[in-house]
Order: sequence, then structure tokens, then C-alpha cells
Amino acid sequence: MHELRVKTRSRNDLVDITAEVQKAVSDSGVDDGVCLLFVPHTTAAVTINEGADPAVRQDIEAELDKVFPWRDGYAHAEGNSAAHIKTSLVGSSETVIVGGGRLILGTWQSIYFCEFDGPRDRKVYVRVTA
Amino acid sequence: MHELRVKTRSRNDLVDITAEVQKAVSDSGVDDGVCLLFVPHTTAAVTINEGADPAVRQDIEAELDKVFPWRDGYAHAEGNSAAHIKTSLVGSSETVIVGGGRLILGTWQSIYFCEFDGPRDRKVYVRVTA
Amino acid sequence: MHELRVKTRSRNDLVDITAEVQKAVSDSGVDDGVCLLFVPHTTAAVTINEGADPAVRQDIEAELDKVFPWRDGYAHAEGNSAAHIKTSLVGSSETVIVGGGRLILGTWQSIYFCEFDGPRDRKVYVRVTA
Repeated sequence: MHELRVKTRSRNDLVDITAEVQKAVSDSGVDDGVCLLFVPHTTAAVTINEGADPAVRQDIEAELDKVFPWRDGYAHAEGNSAAHIKTSLVGSSETVIVGGGRLILGTWQSIYFCEFDGPRDRKVYVRVTA
Repeated sequence: MHELRVKTRSRNDLVDITAEVQKAVSDSGVDDGVCLLFVPHTTAAVTINEGADPAVRQDIEAELDKVFPWRDGYAHAEGNSAAHIKTSLVGSSETVIVGGGRLILGTWQSIYFCEFDGPRDRKVYVRVTA
Repeated sequence: MHELRVKTRSRNDLVDITAEVQKAVSDSGVDDGVCLLFVPHTTAAVTINEGADPAVRQDIEAELDKVFPWRDGYAHAEGNSAAHIKTSLVGSSETVIVGGGRLILGTWQSIYFCEFDGPRDRKVYVRVTA
């Protein structure tokens, strides 16, 4: 299992980690298999989405904020329930197929670490298997 | 494949099943591998989120109800479309890494069975592989 | 790895692909294992939900449109940010257990390809492993 470190810079922050995940795949020596990504936090998640236009991740961050507002009469005293809710919707894990030592992603796909309660120092677990 | 039984007590009910999943992992004898969870229902899901403060799961249940209301002019005659929608967003499966015979979860993470149309008797499939 | 082709017919289109996925499982010759589905697009996803009443998928499509409107002041010039957002929430991958050469789904479960920016010609990657 590899462990990636991600430094997030704001409350919401979608960080493109595709290159780091690809490096973990290359380091694993696995040619054909799967790459499992797991985020061990409860206010951060992982997703796959467009990497070309940064406006896409801005729109994802802003729309999720609009639909699941930071303040909305939540019971949880820490005040970050919106981040917990987004985490359960986006999800803590993602699986990508590996072929020829490469992540088999679509043309426009990048892998994003999704911070919903930053800025923080975060981790992602990567497990590559044949 | 192990099969867990979950009894839910209300329409929305996030039930912490971490201990039962860990038991399935221990019973499997797998030391290092992955644990796949699969919910074979269409109005229930599985997620990973904070297990320490019960207010977190209350906030998740309440906010999802607010955003995806139980009555909202749905076409489905059974009247439980909100539960189907939440199920597709939270998701039917989850994968957790296993190391040293233990689920490798973050400090605050618990595994929740998510009931959205209870109370009911439910099942979760657990597959642990090396 | 198998590759399925899916033709979608409208902007939102949940297409039942259970039979095609089962065929890929059968063709793989794998008796017991897992079937990983991966959608290599950024405005389409995969989910598991009720296959019996078509009103369920209509309600999913309509409610997601209501909550994440097509026009909502998005920054992304292509104008399809709502489709990107829904994709990250529903998710790009799904894993199903295989037993006796069959997908182990619940009684009411079907596998749906979820188009959010169609109509288009789409692909789904299927990887079946023992």
C-alpha cells in the first residue's frame, strides 16, 4: 500500500492527484490490474472528473456549497456537517483499471482529491494489485 | 462471501456496522487484501463517515431529507423515490483495504449501513480477498 | 477487459445495461469473483437501482435536474457543469460480486449507465476477475 500526501489550501479544494497516483502505479510494478484509492478522512473524498478546464472543479465546489450549505441548522457541534454530507455523497473510495502499467482513464478524466473542510494535510491510500 | 443482517428502526437510519464487518474480515482469515461491501437493496446504501458523534449521522439523514424531499411530485407509485435517489448518490458498494487482518480505516471513520426506506430487515454482502 | 458500447437518446438517460454486463461476465469464464464497471467519461456515471418500474429512473433523472439545475450561473464555458456534478455524485465505478458465473444482485437491482449530457455514443469498461 502506498500513501500519498495532499496539502489542501481552502475549505473546498479539489486537487488533481492523477500524476501522483500514476507514479504509485508505476512504482508498484503492476502491469495489468486495478488501482484502489481510499481516503481515510470523514470530511474529504475522491472523485474522477474533467481535468482540462479548472472551471469544472470550481463549479463542482460552488454548486455543492449551494445545495448543501455550510450553515443549515446542523446538530453536530463541530460545525462541519456539510463537509461530512458531501463526503458520503462523493465517496471515500474509487477504483481504476490498470493496463500496460498505466491508469486506464478516459481522455478528459483526472483523479481529484476532494477537500470539504480545509485547509489541512491529508492522506490517500493507494493499493495496486494484479 | 459473508452475509450480514441489519435491522433498521426508522425510515432513515444510518447503522454503524464496523464491528460486524471487522468480524467478517477476521473470520475470513485474510491478512492483507481488500474488503468489498455490497448492499443488495435499491432503497439502502453503504457509506463511511464519522462514528464518534451521533449528531453527524443525524445531520446526514436530515439534510438528505431536506434536499431530496420524501414528497416531491414523483412518478413512482410506490412513493419511495426519494429513497431510490439517495441510494444512487450514496452508492451500493464500498471497498476498504485490509492489513494485518484489520480494516484500514481512518481515526474517525466508521462503516454505515444507510437505510432510506425503513424500518426493514436488510442484508449486506461482504467479500474479503487477499 | 471488455468494452461495452452504450447509445444514449436524450440529455439525461439511465440505460439498463445489466444483460450486457452479465454477458461480459459469462464470456469471461469467471465463476466466482468480482465485476468492476468503469465509465471513462466525465458527464456520465454508473449506478445500481430498481429495474422493475421505469418511473424510478425517470424520478432519479428529474429530481437530480431539479436539485442541480442545468443553468445555475456556472463558470465552465461548455455549459454542462450540472452533468459533471451529477457524475461526481453518482460515481464513475461500481463493483458487483460474481458467484456461479452470475452477477449477485438483489431481487430489484439493475445496473444503469447514467447519461447526463447526451445523446452520445458512450463506453463502459468491464473487468471480471476471480
